[in-house]
Amino acid sequence: MAIRVGILGYGNLGRGVECAVRHNPDMELKAVFTRRDPAGLQILTEGAKVLSAEDAPSMKDEIDVLILCGGSATDLPVQTPQMAEYFNVIDSFDTHANIPQHFDAVDRAARAGGHIGIISVGWDPGMFSLNRLYASAVLPGGRDYTFWGRGVSQGHSDAIRRIHGVKDARQYTIPVEEALTAVRSGSCPELTTRQKHTRECFVVAEEGADLKAIETAIVTMPNYFADYDTTVHFISEEELLRDHAGIPHGGFVIRTGKTGWEDENSHVIEYSLKLDSNPEFTASVIAAYARAAYRLSKEGQTGCRTVFDIAPSYLSAQEGEELRKHLL
Amino acid sequence: MAIRVGILGYGNLGRGVECAVRHNPDMELKAVFTRRDPAGLQILTEGAKVLSAEDAPSMKDEIDVLILCGGSATDLPVQTPQMAEYFNVIDSFDTHANIPQHFDAVDRAARAGGHIGIISVGWDPGMFSLNRLYASAVLPGGRDYTFWGRGVSQGHSDAIRRIHGVKDARQYTIPVEEALTAVRSGSCPELTTRQKHTRECFVVAEEGADLKAIETAIVTMPNYFADYDTTVHFISEEELLRDHAGIPHGGFVIRTGKTGWEDENSHVIEYSLKLDSNPEFTASVIAAYARAAYRLSKEGQTGCRTVFDIAPSYLSAQEGEELRKHLL
Repeated sequence: MAIRVGILGYGNLGRGVECAVRHNPDMELKAVFTRRDPAGLQILTEGAKVLSAEDAPSMKDEIDVLILCGGSATDLPVQTPQMAEYFNVIDSFDTHANIPQHFDAVDRAARAGGHIGIISVGWDPGMFSLNRLYASAVLPGGRDYTFWGRGVSQGHSDAIRRIHGVKDARQYTIPVEEALTAVRSGSCPELTTRQKHTRECFVVAEEGADLKAIETAIVTMPNYFADYDTTVHFISEEELLRDHAGIPHGGFVIRTGKTGWEDENSHVIEYSLKLDSNPEFTASVIAAYARAAYRLSKEGQTGCRTVFDIAPSYLSAQEGEELRKHLL
Repeated sequence: MAIRVGILGYGNLGRGVECAVRHNPDMELKAVFTRRDPAGLQILTEGAKVLSAEDAPSMKDEIDVLILCGGSATDLPVQTPQMAEYFNVIDSFDTHANIPQHFDAVDRAARAGGHIGIISVGWDPGMFSLNRLYASAVLPGGRDYTFWGRGVSQGHSDAIRRIHGVKDARQYTIPVEEALTAVRSGSCPELTTRQKHTRECFVVAEEGADLKAIETAIVTMPNYFADYDTTVHFISEEELLRDHAGIPHGGFVIRTGKTGWEDENSHVIEYSLKLDSNPEFTASVIAAYARAAYRLSKEGQTGCRTVFDIAPSYLSAQEGEELRKHLL
């Protein structure tokens, strides 16, 4: 029998999960829960229900894993613990500083409900975290670096849109090639924020807006841009829609370290992602961990987990024997 | 109390494990077991014993994990199951085709002895296997490719040394740049053996040897060289010792795959290693899994495991809470 999946929240990530379920033949989408009017929501999967978020608990016996696709700021801190009472749950909570308290809240709720919760699943946190952990365990005296991009930062794009005179905008975070080269050399450089990433902005201005003022507002914006070398391009709305419609992202996790009795040998471990669609890739990672949640729950396990706590074999649709034969 | 480590076999890998233990403050080397005369063996670690391999079982209460550093052809198939009766064991068994039967033998012995055995630990099998598994679970419809090098192949170097008139030799396996580029493009190319890797040989000939005959013997050698574009350089013994003394290696695991309702988005996951010392890096991976073996055994678990079966958190000296705070 297929693993029965539910989705709560049907934005970019929710649609990505719907597509990911389609790519995994051992999974089946049962229902999408939305806080909008369900009657107005068209999904892609034939046979899956569209229901109000409030009605989710009534589906608890028909869904093996509920995937929470809301935002980390206000949705997930409430929804994930709440839903862990009724379902095995997975989210992509990505506010790094608040992970410990989110973990505790989901852990309590999942144990009380007799379910598994897996939080902070995606690529960062997620696959990047895994690579930081594996690499640091293998080269304990070394140092690791994470670079993001080239990719669209939603938060930075939003910050530009809030500037007076801006109609629309897209911001790309770009790793600095010289910094990547220095890191790969094994020299363990100290890198400032400015040395690691640059920011490139494509801005559609309102008619008659003061372009110089917009540019200054962007490049001097504290936290978002002031600490970076930022370039601003003004383009037409047509150009924005034509050339910047996608949500690409990616990045690099690099660790270098030494081995040998006197640290005489150097090593470089590098993991990189080049993604056409940030939300669809995140959703694909989540789908693999939905399989793990299902299996852990079948074993009778309960409580909160992260990608660190789950053996890789739980992610694969293949059996242990097959994995050892073909992938080891 | 530190994790007490034993080493069986003191070649390149055994020495690498000795160095890796030094890099992990929570581990301590208790003894090296050798099949040579222990009196003639000088190790680096003060306070660690050097004993005959036959005496290993007598140390069973003083060692938490025994690391087997012999060869996959004849040593490990016998030693790992044998030692699993007395110790938690780890090996780097790398004959891919025989992994299933080795797993079964170690599993039986480890269960009978009440121990944990972890086999095929290193970078391939090992870290590369992990990356094949994670990437295939995340992009189920995709395709993965493994490239090795630039690095020294011991087996191919040995094959050259057996040719009449050859005094010494070093063989490098080199991935073909065009093949890497084609794979990263997401076009899922079909690649022949010849298209993926080239082989470069540095050969010291005996005085008066027939160089043309040696070159022909190399490039036409079945299995080892005939299916590759191979270049042969004759150099002096001084040059070989000066320029080719190291044992570097590395490689790439790349998976590409599609997401989206109609497979409209492409993704590239790439993991790469660049290693100054193949045996020391392998040993570093083994040391991290020795920590896992120790912990699994403390939990009362028994039987054989591979890297697929072990949650990443077991490898780290840090606690779960710390890991979530700093690495997730």
